[in-house]
Amino acid sequence: MRGLAGGRAGRAKRSIVTRRRMPPGTAPGTLSVDPAATPSRIEVIAASADRVRGPDPVAPGALPMADPAVGVLWVNVEGLGDHDALSAVAGAFNLHPLAIEDAINLHQRPKFEDYESHHFVVLRMPQPPGAETVAFVTEQLAICFGPGFVVTLQERPGDVFAPVRHRLLNEAGQMRSRGADYLSYALIDAVVDAYFPVLEALGERVEALEAAVIRVPEAAHVAEIHALKHELMMLRRAVWPMRDMLAAMLRDDSALITDHTRLYLRDCHDHAIQLIELIESYREIASGLIDIHLSSIANRTNEVMRLLTLIATIFIPLTFVAGVYGMNFNPEAGWWNMPELNWRFGYPAVLAGMLALALGLVWWFRRKGWIGRG
Amino acid sequence: MRGLAGGRAGRAKRSIVTRRRMPPGTAPGTLSVDPAATPSRIEVIAASADRVRGPDPVAPGALPMADPAVGVLWVNVEGLGDHDALSAVAGAFNLHPLAIEDAINLHQRPKFEDYESHHFVVLRMPQPPGAETVAFVTEQLAICFGPGFVVTLQERPGDVFAPVRHRLLNEAGQMRSRGADYLSYALIDAVVDAYFPVLEALGERVEALEAAVIRVPEAAHVAEIHALKHELMMLRRAVWPMRDMLAAMLRDDSALITDHTRLYLRDCHDHAIQLIELIESYREIASGLIDIHLSSIANRTNEVMRLLTLIATIFIPLTFVAGVYGMNFNPEAGWWNMPELNWRFGYPAVLAGMLALALGLVWWFRRKGWIGRG
Amino acid sequence: MRGLAGGRAGRAKRSIVTRRRMPPGTAPGTLSVDPAATPSRIEVIAASADRVRGPDPVAPGALPMADPAVGVLWVNVEGLGDHDALSAVAGAFNLHPLAIEDAINLHQRPKFEDYESHHFVVLRMPQPPGAETVAFVTEQLAICFGPGFVVTLQERPGDVFAPVRHRLLNEAGQMRSRGADYLSYALIDAVVDAYFPVLEALGERVEALEAAVIRVPEAAHVAEIHALKHELMMLRRAVWPMRDMLAAMLRDDSALITDHTRLYLRDCHDHAIQLIELIESYREIASGLIDIHLSSIANRTNEVMRLLTLIATIFIPLTFVAGVYGMNFNPEAGWWNMPELNWRFGYPAVLAGMLALALGLVWWFRRKGWIGRG
Amino acid sequence: MRGLAGGRAGRAKRSIVTRRRMPPGTAPGTLSVDPAATPSRIEVIAASADRVRGPDPVAPGALPMADPAVGVLWVNVEGLGDHDALSAVAGAFNLHPLAIEDAINLHQRPKFEDYESHHFVVLRMPQPPGAETVAFVTEQLAICFGPGFVVTLQERPGDVFAPVRHRLLNEAGQMRSRGADYLSYALIDAVVDAYFPVLEALGERVEALEAAVIRVPEAAHVAEIHALKHELMMLRRAVWPMRDMLAAMLRDDSALITDHTRLYLRDCHDHAIQLIELIESYREIASGLIDIHLSSIANRTNEVMRLLTLIATIFIPLTFVAGVYGMNFNPEAGWWNMPELNWRFGYPAVLAGMLALALGLVWWFRRKGWIGRG
Amino acid sequence: MRGLAGGRAGRAKRSIVTRRRMPPGTAPGTLSVDPAATPSRIEVIAASADRVRGPDPVAPGALPMADPAVGVLWVNVEGLGDHDALSAVAGAFNLHPLAIEDAINLHQRPKFEDYESHHFVVLRMPQPPGAETVAFVTEQLAICFGPGFVVTLQERPGDVFAPVRHRLLNEAGQMRSRGADYLSYALIDAVVDAYFPVLEALGERVEALEAAVIRVPEAAHVAEIHALKHELMMLRRAVWPMRDMLAAMLRDDSALITDHTRLYLRDCHDHAIQLIELIESYREIASGLIDIHLSSIANRTNEVMRLLTLIATIFIPLTFVAGVYGMNFNPEAGWWNMPELNWRFGYPAVLAGMLALALGLVWWFRRKGWIGRG
Repeated sequence: MRGLAGGRAGRAKRSIVTRRRMPPGTAPGTLSVDPAATPSRIEVIAASADRVRGPDPVAPGALPMADPAVGVLWVNVEGLGDHDALSAVAGAFNLHPLAIEDAINLHQRPKFEDYESHHFVVLRMPQPPGAETVAFVTEQLAICFGPGFVVTLQERPGDVFAPVRHRLLNEAGQMRSRGADYLSYALIDAVVDAYFPVLEALGERVEALEAAVIRVPEAAHVAEIHALKHELMMLRRAVWPMRDMLAAMLRDDSALITDHTRLYLRDCHDHAIQLIELIESYREIASGLIDIHLSSIANRTNEVMRLLTLIATIFIPLTFVAGVYGMNFNPEAGWWNMPELNWRFGYPAVLAGMLALALGLVWWFRRKGWIGRG
Repeated sequence: MRGLAGGRAGRAKRSIVTRRRMPPGTAPGTLSVDPAATPSRIEVIAASADRVRGPDPVAPGALPMADPAVGVLWVNVEGLGDHDALSAVAGAFNLHPLAIEDAINLHQRPKFEDYESHHFVVLRMPQPPGAETVAFVTEQLAICFGPGFVVTLQERPGDVFAPVRHRLLNEAGQMRSRGADYLSYALIDAVVDAYFPVLEALGERVEALEAAVIRVPEAAHVAEIHALKHELMMLRRAVWPMRDMLAAMLRDDSALITDHTRLYLRDCHDHAIQLIELIESYREIASGLIDIHLSSIANRTNEVMRLLTLIATIFIPLTFVAGVYGMNFNPEAGWWNMPELNWRFGYPAVLAGMLALALGLVWWFRRKGWIGRG
Repeated sequence: MRGLAGGRAGRAKRSIVTRRRMPPGTAPGTLSVDPAATPSRIEVIAASADRVRGPDPVAPGALPMADPAVGVLWVNVEGLGDHDALSAVAGAFNLHPLAIEDAINLHQRPKFEDYESHHFVVLRMPQPPGAETVAFVTEQLAICFGPGFVVTLQERPGDVFAPVRHRLLNEAGQMRSRGADYLSYALIDAVVDAYFPVLEALGERVEALEAAVIRVPEAAHVAEIHALKHELMMLRRAVWPMRDMLAAMLRDDSALITDHTRLYLRDCHDHAIQLIELIESYREIASGLIDIHLSSIANRTNEVMRLLTLIATIFIPLTFVAGVYGMNFNPEAGWWNMPELNWRFGYPAVLAGMLALALGLVWWFRRKGWIGRG
Repeated sequence: MRGLAGGRAGRAKRSIVTRRRMPPGTAPGTLSVDPAATPSRIEVIAASADRVRGPDPVAPGALPMADPAVGVLWVNVEGLGDHDALSAVAGAFNLHPLAIEDAINLHQRPKFEDYESHHFVVLRMPQPPGAETVAFVTEQLAICFGPGFVVTLQERPGDVFAPVRHRLLNEAGQMRSRGADYLSYALIDAVVDAYFPVLEALGERVEALEAAVIRVPEAAHVAEIHALKHELMMLRRAVWPMRDMLAAMLRDDSALITDHTRLYLRDCHDHAIQLIELIESYREIASGLIDIHLSSIANRTNEVMRLLTLIATIFIPLTFVAGVYGMNFNPEAGWWNMPELNWRFGYPAVLAGMLALALGLVWWFRRKGWIGRG
Repeated sequence: MRGLAGGRAGRAKRSIVTRRRMPPGTAPGTLSVDPAATPSRIEVIAASADRVRGPDPVAPGALPMADPAVGVLWVNVEGLGDHDALSAVAGAFNLHPLAIEDAINLHQRPKFEDYESHHFVVLRMPQPPGAETVAFVTEQLAICFGPGFVVTLQERPGDVFAPVRHRLLNEAGQMRSRGADYLSYALIDAVVDAYFPVLEALGERVEALEAAVIRVPEAAHVAEIHALKHELMMLRRAVWPMRDMLAAMLRDDSALITDHTRLYLRDCHDHAIQLIELIESYREIASGLIDIHLSSIANRTNEVMRLLTLIATIFIPLTFVAGVYGMNFNPEAGWWNMPELNWRFGYPAVLAGMLALALGLVWWFRRKGWIGRG
């Protein structure tokens, strides 16, 4: 997934506060549509054991009725910017005002709610694998399902349901005949599965960064590690509550979820746990990276210091000796004044002494283990 | 919110011990009003399905009676410094002495208590969004609600209830007809919602600091990170128990909370969880910042050391050579004494040798990767 | 509280293993009094709804009988060094051998035990606020209460019960008439409340240290942070189990604790949770301090290194140039030998060159941002 | 185990995302065999109390029937690449489609599922001890057991069941007569036991690394510590859910698991906990190693710096003095110009002064404790 | 306890994987005695309310029968190397094969198991206080108790039961008459109590190390801190499950444990919790020590660097100036060539200039706070 691999450090700047659209204090249960949101588009698939119709675009006023005895009706609303469309859908399937409000208010926490006449699920859907985006983006998806109908409300057009549609339209399997709960499961399962490629891409980034930090730690890595932790944190906040949501669905004992579907939801729950384990593993690695970076930098600083100390310790005494013999004392003022300057072998003797001193220091450093591993 | 953005490091000095006003050992259940507290002011709104009266300031002796059959009475007390007012309110609605004591004793932990005849909720209310303060400040808010009445006791005048008042006075909606529990929910929801702008402002600070630390770590950042962690800790202590309080209300099975209201409280509980998740995310980021700061500083120290070592390693040997030829050995004392001083090309030869040495070292450093990335 | 503010680092030396007085393997339930312990002193207050008698010192043999119908008897034993006194008290109120053993064995973990005929509570009591000690000291307090009696066993004379005694003796309130469980609650509440001033004093120390570490980190701070964490750990070990103890009392459904008292115990339990939250907050801050110290030190080392590198990088090349012109090559030996020494403007040219070099380096450092922020 | 000891840092590159073979969105319960998987091979052992037959390779169409009254049938499928074989096995023992799907989809999380007519267990099996591999490798193992049959589905040929086969074929013990649940227990126990040698090998690596880091910290250790943490993380993800799986089996109250077997499963559960405790211990040690490495590096840098400072602080002033007497002021230009150059004992006096200065500095350093411990 | 104080860092080398003696895959419930184990020695004490007999060494074939009506029989087996002895004991008291297997297989995790006819407890017993060992060593102890008998199986001779034996033989107390469960409690209590001196010794080591690290951090401390954490980890793994084991005994509602004994077990459980709290406290301190060490080292490095920078920054410019006046420009070549060399007060003026420069730098450093705190 190209999207995740690009735009690294820059992404750390995206805010993690998920702004609620309505001003604080608005009356709950109000259907206050955001006029800036994408205009709504309704599409219906009607499936029964023996045949399937759709997907057909439908006008808000022409919504079909749900009949659990016949089959299942999937009403997919893309874009949440149209008051009429949303209230028509809410009216047609008798959806609870709080459910509709939650579906419209973006940045809900994934959750499952039981509203007697229907169930309500909200979760965050990643982009479909081939999407041409450059960042890990999720959109909000709300699913309301009751006897004979499934209503999905998406923040934006584009979803991960291509395989579900394919099976619904082309395979005369249980998806057509098992009812609304099974179709809802299939949709949720598609969302959960869509996180795996996202995590794989993230995993490749983590591993590339790991290798880079261990090889040569650079200042830029710190920002990248941080950006990675940021993204993992956001991913975690999308996936963790999804597990709780699935657990709540499994615990639910209303007639709306059959035992047969529950078996499949259990599987989906397992996948959510697997996602969480992966995310936690990556988080652990990313947390470790900053320590590794610090240790690597400390190692390099130590190496640099060792070299400096080596050079300085060898040459500073030698330079001092040279400095001594550069002093301008007048040898003629007295016998004691630097007589060696006039000795016959003074210069070679001093050079030899310097050489001996240098070799002695090198030998000493080698014995301490500083040379030969530098 | 300007308040949060200002006065950073200085704020770290605010004490986190929340002083209890009464001396240890005072008899519990005593109505010992703090004379230094803000004087009390009572204001009443009486709402029924078809009409609403108020808000009217009311004298302690003239409190109206609550009648659940007619509608709901909201008695709002601002300022807790008036013994007569408080005991009049407690008497009129038969409030439990421990509830009143908790309402007066500031710095209670948010909690929900069931006193048979009425419920008691205490929480911390942030400042209204437009408040002209310069720091994140909360005040204590106690809510007692029973059949037909809601009593709110605020530490100071000024609250976040403007939208609730607006809806109560102007909209003939469920708030007037659904009873005391629904009105209490609306008040709690307003408090919970009021934390979102606070967190958004804090989030902007966190992100600004993040960017600054990664770009150029400075000593001052340490104090800022610390101040930030302090504030998040205080925020956390205000919000965490609020979630438990809401969970306790949801679990409560007395007749004082209807199933209808419970549905809305569940939503409010979700918002509290969302707040907590945001706070925990910020705490995690803030904790990571100190590591990033340390890593960045280590990086910079490493760079500085590399430059020093580079310069020193190149020039120290050269200076030594120059020192050698500055020695005053007498070339006339013997053939061995620095004959090169009198060679025809001695000086250029030495300069050339020095140049070769320097170039060799530069080449070596470049091979080790220290130059070209400095 | 002067005690806590003094004697910092030195206190880190106090052992945290709480020695059990009896040798391992002694028979449980044995009343083996430590002869080195403080001699016992028994004091009795007898209170009933209409009158109160005491506090009177009482001889072991003259203990009054408890009669729940009349009122409550508070038998306070100070000092656990007297076998006769202790066995007399145990006999008079039929206390369980294990309870007495726990009361005598110092360094019990705070706990609540139900011994059918009476309840047993053990906790750690801090010093009364005005105590002339120089360290945070707690003593063990055991409370046994049953129908009509409360027996308190203190390790040493001196306690935090002054306000309880005052109310018992001077106010004809519920404390006299509500029975042994309410009096026990009042004693426990006094102990819990006595931790608040201790925490406030500790909080001031934490904040002073915080400010100091951020301003100028010193080596001594490390020891102080460590001492602080030590003390917080001890405080935590005293307070955490107190919360569990109170929770166990709340869960207890025997007739010995009335619903009325339970309401007050719930409040006391809340205070214990508040204490724990404060301690955990301080622990978190103290843990953060060591990171801040490290970051601050790293910052300062970085600054020092930058200065050194600056000076060295500017002067080492200059000194080399000076060294070169200090070489004694003989200009007369050939045209190539340091002709510049005899040039007319050789010296000022070299000085100018040096100045140019120095200015160039300064300019370069300024561009890299090392000067102007040093 | 040679495998674990080799190929250290390189192993950190293995991806930890466990790729699910089927594309996201495939219909659940589909028997979509991966054609690239190892071809299947079926082997059957039929055991009853008095005799045993097998292991015989069996064609998919010739699978025997299970009869719990007679004994137990162990059908072992190695390699999951053959659609006919797998559907034949599923058909013969009436296995649930989801169970078969989970068995084929590699990288399942270890789990236990109850499908009414049979139980399903999936876990990760380490290599048999003598395996000629060079890395810690696990393969997926699925066990389905019902009345009279145990079906095992292995990812690859080669397993850790040699001792189970041996006992089944050679010892007329309870394994033959206790039924399918006991045989399943024996298989699971063999898998759990097979982790102990893996952990022992890992333990030796941890300890070797520990010793090395403490002795002389090297840059390469950072990568090794990281690789170790990686491997422990993978091990943990294989073992933790195995414990939950065993706990679920213990809680299961269907007739398929007898009380007798449950006693043995309890023992197996204990072993899984022991494995987890070992892994957690190693993780803790590995986490500590990075701190130890950092501390050791800091220690060494400190030592190096101390030496540099020692040398520099002693020689820099001496060199300065020598430099002063190397200045070319003309003593004849005035009495004040370096008269000491012409003093009789000028040179020895300066040398003596230098010596005194050097000795003074050495004495001072010794007093500060820098020499004698260097 | 001398043992713990000695042999520090060296101990870090002891493996923490506890090898299971039997090869993986051995049939469970097999009585496969390790021939290398200590030979078994059986000793019996028979106690009834009025008299006591023993301890008598007994041959495997001559084991007495247990009769709960008469009293309690304590069969103590020291050394697990004798197949006959062990199978005789198992036969005489009808012990479950899995219990015997667990007793023989060393390195069990402490646990409690209920085998209908008898209970089984396994735990780790520390050395008796006076033992002449040099390291913290535990041995495995298994206790089987049923109606009228207690069988203890020890890995090696030597135990912590001296006080139990003393009380059993000399005091006609409840230990003789209360039955097998009370005797078992007494044995478990003796084991739990035996950990306190171990922890005290460890505590002294922790505190000594703490003081040393804060005073002067040394490289050797890192290894010692690590060894300490190792030992605490092993201690923790011995004690934590002991608490769970005691909790399981308290929950057990079979007739084998009387309410009277349960009261004492509760006390024992409290002691185990106290042990755990101590261990956790030490672990926390030990974890903090590595941070303190790092901070202290950073402090010292900073000090060293400050000194170096001080000396270098003062003398490097001075040396440069001296170098300048050591240049050999010919003053006669032109008026500009170093005329100051021939000035009358050139030399003193330069010296004075150097002094001024040095004093200026010292003043500047003092203002920056580097001198006066060095």
